[in-house]
Amino acid sequence: MSDPVVIGVDFGTLSGRAVVVRVSDAAELGSAVHPYAHSVMDRTLTATGAALPPDWALQVPSDYVDVLRTAVPEALAASGVSPQDVIGLGTDFTACTMVPVLADGTPLCEVPGLADRPHAYVKLWKHHAAQPHADRINALAEERGEPWLARYGGRISSEWEFAKGLQLLEEDPELYDRMDHWVEAADWIVWQLCGSYVRDACTTGYKAIYQDGHYPSRDYLAALNPAFEGFVDDKVAHPIGELGARAGSLTAEAAGWTGLPEGIAVAVGNVDAHVTAPAAQAVEPGQMVAIMGTSTCHVMSSDMLAEVPGMCGVVDGGIVPGLFGYEAGQSGVGDIFGWFVDTCVPPSYVDEATKRGLGVHEYLTELAAAQQVGAHGLVALDWHNGNRSVLVDHELSGVVVGQTLATRPEDTYRALIEATAFGTRTIIEAFEKSGVPVTELVIAGGLTKNALLMQIYADVNRMPLSVIGSEQGPAVGSAIHAAVAAGAYPDIHAAARTMGNVRRSVHVPDEERARAYDALFDEYTTLHEYFGRGANDVLHRLRRIRTEAMKQ
Amino acid sequence: MSDPVVIGVDFGTLSGRAVVVRVSDAAELGSAVHPYAHSVMDRTLTATGAALPPDWALQVPSDYVDVLRTAVPEALAASGVSPQDVIGLGTDFTACTMVPVLADGTPLCEVPGLADRPHAYVKLWKHHAAQPHADRINALAEERGEPWLARYGGRISSEWEFAKGLQLLEEDPELYDRMDHWVEAADWIVWQLCGSYVRDACTTGYKAIYQDGHYPSRDYLAALNPAFEGFVDDKVAHPIGELGARAGSLTAEAAGWTGLPEGIAVAVGNVDAHVTAPAAQAVEPGQMVAIMGTSTCHVMSSDMLAEVPGMCGVVDGGIVPGLFGYEAGQSGVGDIFGWFVDTCVPPSYVDEATKRGLGVHEYLTELAAAQQVGAHGLVALDWHNGNRSVLVDHELSGVVVGQTLATRPEDTYRALIEATAFGTRTIIEAFEKSGVPVTELVIAGGLTKNALLMQIYADVNRMPLSVIGSEQGPAVGSAIHAAVAAGAYPDIHAAARTMGNVRRSVHVPDEERARAYDALFDEYTTLHEYFGRGANDVLHRLRRIRTEAMKQ
Repeated sequence: MSDPVVIGVDFGTLSGRAVVVRVSDAAELGSAVHPYAHSVMDRTLTATGAALPPDWALQVPSDYVDVLRTAVPEALAASGVSPQDVIGLGTDFTACTMVPVLADGTPLCEVPGLADRPHAYVKLWKHHAAQPHADRINALAEERGEPWLARYGGRISSEWEFAKGLQLLEEDPELYDRMDHWVEAADWIVWQLCGSYVRDACTTGYKAIYQDGHYPSRDYLAALNPAFEGFVDDKVAHPIGELGARAGSLTAEAAGWTGLPEGIAVAVGNVDAHVTAPAAQAVEPGQMVAIMGTSTCHVMSSDMLAEVPGMCGVVDGGIVPGLFGYEAGQSGVGDIFGWFVDTCVPPSYVDEATKRGLGVHEYLTELAAAQQVGAHGLVALDWHNGNRSVLVDHELSGVVVGQTLATRPEDTYRALIEATAFGTRTIIEAFEKSGVPVTELVIAGGLTKNALLMQIYADVNRMPLSVIGSEQGPAVGSAIHAAVAAGAYPDIHAAARTMGNVRRSVHVPDEERARAYDALFDEYTTLHEYFGRGANDVLHRLRRIRTEAMKQ
Repeated sequence: MSDPVVIGVDFGTLSGRAVVVRVSDAAELGSAVHPYAHSVMDRTLTATGAALPPDWALQVPSDYVDVLRTAVPEALAASGVSPQDVIGLGTDFTACTMVPVLADGTPLCEVPGLADRPHAYVKLWKHHAAQPHADRINALAEERGEPWLARYGGRISSEWEFAKGLQLLEEDPELYDRMDHWVEAADWIVWQLCGSYVRDACTTGYKAIYQDGHYPSRDYLAALNPAFEGFVDDKVAHPIGELGARAGSLTAEAAGWTGLPEGIAVAVGNVDAHVTAPAAQAVEPGQMVAIMGTSTCHVMSSDMLAEVPGMCGVVDGGIVPGLFGYEAGQSGVGDIFGWFVDTCVPPSYVDEATKRGLGVHEYLTELAAAQQVGAHGLVALDWHNGNRSVLVDHELSGVVVGQTLATRPEDTYRALIEATAFGTRTIIEAFEKSGVPVTELVIAGGLTKNALLMQIYADVNRMPLSVIGSEQGPAVGSAIHAAVAAGAYPDIHAAARTMGNVRRSVHVPDEERARAYDALFDEYTTLHEYFGRGANDVLHRLRRIRTEAMKQ
């Protein structure tokens, strides 16, 4: 055996990506992407053509297996590596993405006679139709003073296992009864690979409300709905595997799909954001990784346990075993800039960008970069897609303050970028105030390419920014987990030190700009509190008015 | 003499317009426009090419005379009317637009040796360089409890006679000493026509702080600057003519310019907004005329004297003799919509509008008109060009609340239209709360063409809208004043009844929409108070930050 490699597979929202990574130095030797044949079913159920209600988002589990059948062998072929050199496979997944299955792992949608039932399919992370159920979960938990609520920043999301499970129970009770396990797709795919069902510690903590060795009580569940009393015991609870542990060995069947040797290590499942931390060499306490794309997810390990207001959650071993893993999020970042470019930029700008061979983002960035801090006279709230951390309120919306007849598109564009940077600072300050220090900010994801945006984040947060070295952070992170599961490294820390890749202090704050941003951040904070915490609840009222008006 | 006619001449910011109007029925028989050769000098002084400081705006008085020489004979020729049928001439002007002159009316810029001195020229209404002087005028008046301050909504504008005069004194004292009269252009043009200087009651009250028979005291003026003590007595005070009165008779020289008969009546000068009231048949108490263009000016007569917070002013006989004339204003209306269309609308919309043969305004209006009230989920503050009434604060700026990733251009466009309608309602309510009833709302100006905008104003204000019948309201108003000055009617009321032209109840409020708007107006008002009255002074701070940043 010459030079061992591992394979990481990242299951995203629309496709899966496999990357072949050398164990000794994390060289990325080959990769391949396979889009899901059924993509996201959010309007109709493909099997029947029937319309789905608003806010639904379903997937077909066999699409995930197709990634194993196609992208894995393609990546291997592209790498030129012999299958015999592959010592392990690791995976990460969107979450919370839930598969209802029989005892043997068969998805209900594959059970004869059930293909026409929407609730038999995978509920993708962005299935938001369980909001009423989440509201009840939160109200009851608050009323009863459930101790776990504060571990999730005070609010359980409609995206998570309990809200989606309660919706399933109440909307299709027969199917709920048929279901033997309510499985995270992150764990279901591992089950397909190694033949055994192991819950990963990450989603179990973040999405299944598992804290201090307990799930929510039967008593609490019964109070939600008497038929929900056994939800944990009957559908959710299962042996839990540490991250980086070996879930099992590749089965003959999966070896057939992938072209890999039977019996190699399969790592415990993981989540795309969290698995990125070791790829960015950021698994020590205080190293916060911000994965910045359409939205931003922040993950950080710490040796302190604290209840940080508005975080998504804190989970013992949620990122690496032995440390508390924290998660926070900004629900709109790149998609706000995308919305602005698509709907708020006039033809003269688009023409000029085209003439100069630039994208509109690049052109606006160039214009905005020429400005002094504050020269646009604006401050914005970055809530166009709601606010996850620290307000945990998806019904908020955006605010732009200070426009005049002289305001140009690049002014507002820059103000929106700054607003998201202020959002990040708000999160970091919430951690610091709760006694959880943030010592380094590491950026991953597509937005790392925008140098102005990166500089603004450095200046606003008065922190040098480190940048992940790989463009395929999640897949590389999964490969790192595979290497640990295969025993090539003693633990994730050691693997990350060798296989992780980060450029430190790529963007350094300028003290003068940082001071100028302090003043604007004060303005942001004042507006954040005013619009976000009920002093003026206009954003909620406008949403209600909108909803009512849309019905007419 | 067959059928007598009068001529109205409206002196605007960039050109003058003459209209020939039949006295018996106000038929508009001919018109002509003449642009000012020097337009507005706001960057350089034409005579020398020297740069002007920021916020300056000058004009050349001979350009006004050129309008008399060209537009008047052209309009007359276009009408086919014989000069012998013309019985009078009336004029209106932008205000406060100030001409420094010698005792015989010669503008200082025409005095040999003074053409290179910026302060020798006309200071146009939008010359805003006297803001520091206005600030001192206001601070001192407040400190001393000057009784006239409340007659101007609590604030004197930098555009008015005292601020501009104080700037002249302090920046070019030699020229100030050479100046015999500080004359409104409205009165200077009448002086050129009839050879005698008569102050009109309108600008004397609104711009020269003349209240209850007195100007500000020598004592107050000396406290501003000892050299300013004699400003009123030496430069400003002069016999005042009632509106609609005959200022004098057309001189031989002016007859030569215009081609009109020597000796015909020349009416006392007037201001473009105020003179529109009789053209819209709106000179009775409670009839508010909103002249809606880039900005909106509101004028209304009343038999009650009250101090309305934030109005521009109340003047005895300021619109028609015998009634108190009120003025209020919104500093940004059409120009906000124009800014939005120019800088915030994407190519796809512009292309679609072009394809359908529509302007972008028309296309956005069509899309916005299809919405239910509140369906866009937005509320905006219409302060992109500051706020005149009721906050009297030019340093405010715009606010848009509630945007999401689903917000489309027509949503924000509609919200901006609504914001200006809420601004009008705020003004009307200020009048009502001060005991000055507003019984009718009459709209004049270019925006009357937008039926959606008109309907929104009707719904928001829960009032039927009347619409002026002429597209040349000011010039027709001046013609009405000419008819009164010539004795064809006993007073402006009688002339307006016959010569004014209004369509009543063109846009009628819908009670359901009006109720829906009540809720949005409440939101507007809450934000108006929060951002406008110091609870959160962020808009001023942002402006200061912007000003500082622009210096770097």
